[in-house]
Amino acid sequence: MAKGGRVVIGMVGLPARGKSYIARKIARYLNWQQIKCEVFNLGQYRRDLCGTKECTADFFDPNNLEGVKAREQCAQLCLEDMIEFLTTGGGKVAVYDGTNTTVERRRMVRDAIKKSIPKCTVIWVESICTDDKIIENNIKSAKLSNPDYKGVDPDQAIKDFLERIEQYKKKYEELSEETDGEDCSFVKLYNVGKRVVVNNINGYLASKVVSYLMNLHVNPHPIYLVKAGETQFLLENRLGGDAPLTENGKKYAKALNEFFKKEKSEGKITEGTKIFTSTLQRTTQTAQAIDIGCKIHKMRILDELNYGVCEGFSLKELEEKYPTELSERKADKLRYRFLRGESYLDLIHRIEPVIFEIEKSKEPVIVVADTSVLRCFYAYFSKHEIQDVPFLPVPLNTVVKLIPEAYFCYENLYEINIESGEVKEQQNPKSLETKRVPRTISHIFYRGKE
Amino acid sequence: MAKGGRVVIGMVGLPARGKSYIARKIARYLNWQQIKCEVFNLGQYRRDLCGTKECTADFFDPNNLEGVKAREQCAQLCLEDMIEFLTTGGGKVAVYDGTNTTVERRRMVRDAIKKSIPKCTVIWVESICTDDKIIENNIKSAKLSNPDYKGVDPDQAIKDFLERIEQYKKKYEELSEETDGEDCSFVKLYNVGKRVVVNNINGYLASKVVSYLMNLHVNPHPIYLVKAGETQFLLENRLGGDAPLTENGKKYAKALNEFFKKEKSEGKITEGTKIFTSTLQRTTQTAQAIDIGCKIHKMRILDELNYGVCEGFSLKELEEKYPTELSERKADKLRYRFLRGESYLDLIHRIEPVIFEIEKSKEPVIVVADTSVLRCFYAYFSKHEIQDVPFLPVPLNTVVKLIPEAYFCYENLYEINIESGEVKEQQNPKSLETKRVPRTISHIFYRGKE
Repeated sequence: MAKGGRVVIGMVGLPARGKSYIARKIARYLNWQQIKCEVFNLGQYRRDLCGTKECTADFFDPNNLEGVKAREQCAQLCLEDMIEFLTTGGGKVAVYDGTNTTVERRRMVRDAIKKSIPKCTVIWVESICTDDKIIENNIKSAKLSNPDYKGVDPDQAIKDFLERIEQYKKKYEELSEETDGEDCSFVKLYNVGKRVVVNNINGYLASKVVSYLMNLHVNPHPIYLVKAGETQFLLENRLGGDAPLTENGKKYAKALNEFFKKEKSEGKITEGTKIFTSTLQRTTQTAQAIDIGCKIHKMRILDELNYGVCEGFSLKELEEKYPTELSERKADKLRYRFLRGESYLDLIHRIEPVIFEIEKSKEPVIVVADTSVLRCFYAYFSKHEIQDVPFLPVPLNTVVKLIPEAYFCYENLYEINIESGEVKEQQNPKSLETKRVPRTISHIFYRGKE
Repeated sequence: MAKGGRVVIGMVGLPARGKSYIARKIARYLNWQQIKCEVFNLGQYRRDLCGTKECTADFFDPNNLEGVKAREQCAQLCLEDMIEFLTTGGGKVAVYDGTNTTVERRRMVRDAIKKSIPKCTVIWVESICTDDKIIENNIKSAKLSNPDYKGVDPDQAIKDFLERIEQYKKKYEELSEETDGEDCSFVKLYNVGKRVVVNNINGYLASKVVSYLMNLHVNPHPIYLVKAGETQFLLENRLGGDAPLTENGKKYAKALNEFFKKEKSEGKITEGTKIFTSTLQRTTQTAQAIDIGCKIHKMRILDELNYGVCEGFSLKELEEKYPTELSERKADKLRYRFLRGESYLDLIHRIEPVIFEIEKSKEPVIVVADTSVLRCFYAYFSKHEIQDVPFLPVPLNTVVKLIPEAYFCYENLYEINIESGEVKEQQNPKSLETKRVPRTISHIFYRGKE
């Protein structure tokens, strides 16, 4: 049996209201903070159990009794798996991702959860869109690539999907205190957060999720990850320190300026673009070379991993002076904490406010930092597992551009020749993927596991 | 003229809805984060300009034209001061604390602000109470000590105050998209946060304030500040380090256990009480001695100020090796950052999530940490200025209990004799006050300056 503190977040809303997007965002956010969370997607259960062939709009007609029954069975199985995850599976938060558009369905779900896990908190998150443009965008960007419509003509697919929405509308009952009970905990999001109603939210985890939801929006904006230029310390393979840029480092910084000027002239960098950097010399010098009229925010929490007593050591010296430390580090690079310094896990925790800040931003962000810090940002936005963080490659003289969208994170790699200023571009390059875990879309998104 | 990024938070609601409490909490929270904020309290302007003698309920009757005119003049003056604060006074956020219960008044206020500071964001925060108990408590705890009722019989004062509320009710128009405009930014708090409606909130500062408001509640709970017991390092006056407790330190930890057992038996410590401590030996050993069935949370962000290269130095050694550093530190102890270490300002920033956590908590919290860290907590909750932080006394073998309430922070000091276990108690002790700034209620609360 699970010991208190479990939370189920139940999504509510018509199809194409961004429910799955929100569900996955919540899961990503919580897992990043070591709070085990999984998304249980009803649509996926339906596709697994009923196949996709029969899933035309008729299937969703509330008068089609066979369809109703099949869908209830799917809901039941999904619910059972979810409860197992929360009781014996070590899960802390589960997101129940379905339409849940009737009071009766919501009561059934809540009762089933409470019966198995009496102390579990159930929070409903309803997404309401009155803006037709948002809905159309959702259908185009997310639903047409849906397995239900594989091989179907896009126009036909949109028509069918709009019909499916109409079927759901027949029985839709919005969340309210009157119908769902005064003590019902819920969050209603209107037009992707333009208006938010929060009812009866208590407790640490619940408040955390709600604060996060309040800052969620769906404006994808590029995030540029820029490693500081070359330093003498880097050439000597030394840890940490606060060395200035070498001549090569300065050349890179200049070339970087040209690169961003070009991005700006192409409209990819806006007036409101922010540059975040650390307080160290190498990062500050690199950031200050980017002269495109954007504000530079120097942040101590973006400083490199603190190597404690090992600051300034070369790997060779480390091996001589602290051989056991080095082997400990090899055994668990994520959790290994340098003597009086930090571990990668510490670092992940330290930079969290900046990740949150970038997620809230509606404008591009440029992060100029060191390898250890950029590894964390790269992992978060391109949806790598935390375990991968210490191993992700962050090449020198190279800009990584990420555009995290609803179902994918676009990656561009710009390798800059510091002599000629020439830029070599690669899209979604394989080289950036870690070798530890095979990463495929299905691996990431199957059942919403992230 | 102010450059963008200014925010006015306008309070809305009937009297005794906790508006001033919320206003001051926001100001405290923002100022702590170096965002200059002041509360402009209409009631204070009225009292300053019209005196308190005439302020019986009749004065607030919307049909009393003289009263209406006088109150409008007060509003005008208050508004002018506020605009001055935001344009030439260096203020970033101003809280306009009045009832603002009509659409017309709100439009007037917004237009006046927008005319002087076009880029200023105006956010309304409405407090709605339908629970009579909360209202009665508010009147008793806050209003009877109000200068308007100095020397008035309490029963008579309550009666008059309830009449005053009735006068306001005559013209009260709740905030809504329909009357105040679809793009109106507002937060509606029902019964102190049980239900929250957020409309059209954008931007960094605004989201920050709203997230804070969502977690606000009015359950005062004690916060115990406990300094780690004695160590050899402390005896030698050395900075930082990670020494274990001495025999005396262990005795103190034992006596501390008895102290908290007594607090528990008296009902002051609840089942849900949390113990927050750092990852160092001395704090962990001290915290673990407190055996009252409460969960201990070891947090790295509660570790002592990082002294960088000066770690482990005695003050004498510091003087010999880094004489200029020491004089720099003396010149600005708040901002002085140890070489590769931290400043007090860094520390204040570092512990912010824990302050937020304690504010959200509805149960007592025990913080076991070192002097530098406890200074920050003490300053925040007992409403000291940030400048005072590095100078606040944190005596050894002593527990500080704080109960921050709406209009005051109660302080108790428990000096523990480590041999006999005897406890000497002092209430609101003067000794804890810093000498730098004379601290009086009027100093802190006059015009909401904190």
